[in-house]
Amino acid sequence: MKTLHVELGDRRYPIYIGASLLDQAELLTSHIHGHQVMLVSNETVAPLYLQRVIDNLKDFEVHQVILPDGEQYKTLDITNRIFTALLETRCDRSVTVVALGGGVIGDITGFAAACYQRGVAFIQIPTTLLAQVDSSVGGKTGVNHALGKNMIGAFYQPQCVIADTDTLNTLDDRQLAAGIAEVIKYGLIRDKTFYDWLQRHVADLSARDGDALSHAIEVSCQNKADVVAADELESGQRALLNLGHTFGHAIETGTGYGVWLHGEAVGAGMAMAADLSLREGWISIAQQTEIIELIKSAKLPVTPPLEMDAQRFHELMAVDKKVLRGVLRLVLLKDIGEAVVSSDFDPDNLDATLREYGR
Amino acid sequence: MKTLHVELGDRRYPIYIGASLLDQAELLTSHIHGHQVMLVSNETVAPLYLQRVIDNLKDFEVHQVILPDGEQYKTLDITNRIFTALLETRCDRSVTVVALGGGVIGDITGFAAACYQRGVAFIQIPTTLLAQVDSSVGGKTGVNHALGKNMIGAFYQPQCVIADTDTLNTLDDRQLAAGIAEVIKYGLIRDKTFYDWLQRHVADLSARDGDALSHAIEVSCQNKADVVAADELESGQRALLNLGHTFGHAIETGTGYGVWLHGEAVGAGMAMAADLSLREGWISIAQQTEIIELIKSAKLPVTPPLEMDAQRFHELMAVDKKVLRGVLRLVLLKDIGEAVVSSDFDPDNLDATLREYGR
Repeated sequence: MKTLHVELGDRRYPIYIGASLLDQAELLTSHIHGHQVMLVSNETVAPLYLQRVIDNLKDFEVHQVILPDGEQYKTLDITNRIFTALLETRCDRSVTVVALGGGVIGDITGFAAACYQRGVAFIQIPTTLLAQVDSSVGGKTGVNHALGKNMIGAFYQPQCVIADTDTLNTLDDRQLAAGIAEVIKYGLIRDKTFYDWLQRHVADLSARDGDALSHAIEVSCQNKADVVAADELESGQRALLNLGHTFGHAIETGTGYGVWLHGEAVGAGMAMAADLSLREGWISIAQQTEIIELIKSAKLPVTPPLEMDAQRFHELMAVDKKVLRGVLRLVLLKDIGEAVVSSDFDPDNLDATLREYGR
Repeated sequence: MKTLHVELGDRRYPIYIGASLLDQAELLTSHIHGHQVMLVSNETVAPLYLQRVIDNLKDFEVHQVILPDGEQYKTLDITNRIFTALLETRCDRSVTVVALGGGVIGDITGFAAACYQRGVAFIQIPTTLLAQVDSSVGGKTGVNHALGKNMIGAFYQPQCVIADTDTLNTLDDRQLAAGIAEVIKYGLIRDKTFYDWLQRHVADLSARDGDALSHAIEVSCQNKADVVAADELESGQRALLNLGHTFGHAIETGTGYGVWLHGEAVGAGMAMAADLSLREGWISIAQQTEIIELIKSAKLPVTPPLEMDAQRFHELMAVDKKVLRGVLRLVLLKDIGEAVVSSDFDPDNLDATLREYGR
């Protein structure tokens, strides 16, 4: 097992990464300080792993709420089901809420924990690659609104993150690829060494090679932990983690949540960000080609769905969280391994990218 | 004008109290740092005061959302209307959300501001006595759940609080009395001098005497600001501010939100807390009688509605936020001007109080 830490002062917490962690009861129980636990999972993950988590909690009063599976259920209404379960079982302020599942379960559960009685403890047990390398770490929680992705939420840190790499064995290929999108992101925005490693090992990740996956998860989590420790509330560099996400969120909102997986939308979004970076003259055509080939090798889409035209992108990107005083800011690449958040791009170049990709 | 401050370090903010403050544009504009403003009000208050606030905001992009009036609308669903308005008008992270109304508008608007894009600026312009003396100060925001009052929310501080005492002129008598309940609360829990003043001046408050109201608002806000500065997140003494509230919340939830005003429920709840404090031998029968007479003089109920029997109180109080590890804690009086949060009361005495009051 590897242990990393997110260094946030009082709210410092560990990320445990390794095989068979679900069977190590004390990893979980050492972070629970009350006597009540509310487990939140979904209909796909619960039959696979819920009982193993419950078996670790013999000395606690354990409750559960099982939500439907999919991004389309990451809503305020579904969050209310968690509140109802907490109240029906008379969970008090000392309850620990545990998220067992992928990014959707982690985001919605963290938000419910942030709001229940104005804040109770929570723990992340991510079971998808995307959640293990990205969404479970860093305290961004929240839900979608019909008019915009992740528009309602809170910054709220967990007590710990337990990433059992064995859970990736039950992941389907689409979900695995979606996770690799976020892995590639870390290489592109701030870690050229990791990017070079990915060039050589992306096929190993797709083939579920255990050593390759463990390495990718550790390096990704370390990158995420470093960025979050430096800028918890995204007043600066944390926004770099959103490479491809402004384009990607537009795809997710525009096609309807759950049609494309988040990581798939980020794959196409990173290709679009590379295209715009090329048009700005910041990266070379060779670099852009290489990036697109890497995304493709991960079995991810590199173009948005046909229904997304340039006009629709413009409309949806106008409500992105990085818009400030009416000005759109995007995460773009100055080089491989070096991203910037910038509004200093030629609007004609953005139009050209949107027309090229949004046909 | 009187200016008090809530001393919370970086998040220190002023409370302005006085007449005609709605006409002093700079009080408001000096606390707005972006170019967009979303005004949130209700159908009762908006026709009276919204235009005056808009007139102060000529240099800003101003939007508005008008909600229905009443505690029964302090829900997650209605909060979503604020999110929709923010997204439809493309409000970005630099928006300032302004609550213009009573406690319900302040609580729901503050919660929306805490969650929109994971947190945007907000300002409180309370227009009821209850909001001016209590709910607008201190950063408790949130909404109700069908199973429990204020169970969903956030601690989220405003940029400033602007309490224009002229707005009390349009308040109906029930709303005025509801506000006096929270005023009496400060005397009972921590300010014997103020309690003595109230004994002499409660009729002046009910008669809307301007000087008496100003004094009551200032002293109440100072008490609130002191308590909040010492214990922002209610790990200790802040809970004292909930004298009468555990009984009161049970009344509000049990009768259906909006049937009783919050302050009315607190009036009856304080009478019940005094009864239990008497049974514990902590206050004398003379003191209990005096407290009940004071609440009555403020034209507040001193008994719960008939439909609330002892059993219903027990059920509803079991999900109170002060329950910890299954043990109910209550705010009780050791003396006039000295409250405690305690689970150290005889359960038989609580039963006796509930049977006495819940017939």
